[in-house]
Amino acid sequence: MTDQNPVLARLMDGTAPARRLTDATAAAAADLRLRTGVTPCLATVLVGEDPASVTYVRMKRNRCEKAGIRSRHVPLPAATSTAQLVDVLGELSADPTVHGILLQHPAGPRVDERAAFEAIAPAKDVDGVTTHSFAAMSFGLPGFTSCTPGGIMRLLDEYRVGLTGKHAVVIGRSAILGKPAGMLLLARDATVTYCHSRTVDLPSIVREADVLIAAVGRPELIRGEHLKPGAVVIDAGYNPGNVGDVHFASARERAGLITPVPGGVGPMTIAVLLAQTVEAATRQLGPQRQ
Amino acid sequence: MTDQNPVLARLMDGTAPARRLTDATAAAAADLRLRTGVTPCLATVLVGEDPASVTYVRMKRNRCEKAGIRSRHVPLPAATSTAQLVDVLGELSADPTVHGILLQHPAGPRVDERAAFEAIAPAKDVDGVTTHSFAAMSFGLPGFTSCTPGGIMRLLDEYRVGLTGKHAVVIGRSAILGKPAGMLLLARDATVTYCHSRTVDLPSIVREADVLIAAVGRPELIRGEHLKPGAVVIDAGYNPGNVGDVHFASARERAGLITPVPGGVGPMTIAVLLAQTVEAATRQLGPQRQ
Repeated sequence: MTDQNPVLARLMDGTAPARRLTDATAAAAADLRLRTGVTPCLATVLVGEDPASVTYVRMKRNRCEKAGIRSRHVPLPAATSTAQLVDVLGELSADPTVHGILLQHPAGPRVDERAAFEAIAPAKDVDGVTTHSFAAMSFGLPGFTSCTPGGIMRLLDEYRVGLTGKHAVVIGRSAILGKPAGMLLLARDATVTYCHSRTVDLPSIVREADVLIAAVGRPELIRGEHLKPGAVVIDAGYNPGNVGDVHFASARERAGLITPVPGGVGPMTIAVLLAQTVEAATRQLGPQRQ
Repeated sequence: MTDQNPVLARLMDGTAPARRLTDATAAAAADLRLRTGVTPCLATVLVGEDPASVTYVRMKRNRCEKAGIRSRHVPLPAATSTAQLVDVLGELSADPTVHGILLQHPAGPRVDERAAFEAIAPAKDVDGVTTHSFAAMSFGLPGFTSCTPGGIMRLLDEYRVGLTGKHAVVIGRSAILGKPAGMLLLARDATVTYCHSRTVDLPSIVREADVLIAAVGRPELIRGEHLKPGAVVIDAGYNPGNVGDVHFASARERAGLITPVPGGVGPMTIAVLLAQTVEAATRQLGPQRQ
């Protein structure tokens, strides 16, 4: 009977904690406006008209508006060059009415994305994409987190997942997801393994994971039979059609905690973006007046 | 009989490749001097008079001299504050006659070492200690490597150790040794696990390592029986009395390749420092004249 009716993993819902975080962010934005007369402002820069990117940016701007954050949208033609994009990001970095900057990626075929990211002032890097932010996450220095890794850490804390001494396996090594997620877990005293497309015998490593972060963008790569029983499974994979990197149905029969897709990591990512925007504005507008 | 006379691991000698690298560095320094009239210069900054640090700095300066690199020594009192040290490093960063800067660490009890490191201009960070250099190593961007991790990678290449898909286990997570070593291995397509003092059941993880980097500073922590047979063992541990993090005699009976201590990683570290100093000077003095 146990095999037919296995105990299912508890769901790590991201929507409720994201809402709570956003409520706190909205309160902080309102407070800042009251104290300084200034509404926090996020600049959203979009190169080209990729439909998914257009949708993402619109969603982020809507969330900003609901949280009392102004957004300034800067649409650029698909043919924008690196130099042109760097100029735009430099101007926004220098503009005192802009507190946070989001460059939606991918930034187009003509753009050196790293050079573009680096044109964002660290103090306004609320999406956590600069090398400055990465080093800050790696070394525990002041700075912003990449939004998805930051959201993952908040979700783990929300569900009181202990990390010290746990074996965390991160699948994926991108500059704004896998790499910083691993560094944040390492800073919390997890033993951290980075896996990726060249990893040999991925299942044998996944089987050792107390905490698994799937962040590679391969639909349903991880199946329940790969998991250590009781593992905490965070599915941060983005694939078309709301499919994660984890085969949810089978994983749920073996994991202890698992994020749904959608409704897990995604809402936390946006909530962190908003929170960091208001934090950036608060720092830029100076300390609270007495 | 096999137990009494096991096949011993091949030694990964660092002295001969370090000598070859330093010979090439000396040739590049001489060439630069001939072309520009300028001798590459490394500034060595030492806070206090810790005997081990005094010895290290003297050794590095001697090696510079032999390679045709000028060194400018800046001794500072033990009571030097962070602000004072930052000022000194800022001046050296701005001084066109200095091409590389080495801040010997530990930098003294009164100093915020991270703040001091960050005062070094990235273009002169030939010891690879700034967050800029760390991010460059992590993302495969132009920049200098931390010297010991850079030396380890050169040693692995020297002995033609394939890294793609291999499981590399790094014990230690310091900002200038463990963390960057793992990032460099990840960039070469190894599967990378970071272990540290809070890791549970270290032996079971070490047993999975095709390549083991011991960089934690605990004398003879790793013993032969922990190793996967045939593993490549890099002992980058610094402990008093020329003792590494690996119990050499037992490890040699099980590893495939192993660095001796001394004569393994140590010489490579200094060779990388010299090479990066001449590289920095070459970049700062502009491209080769036609």
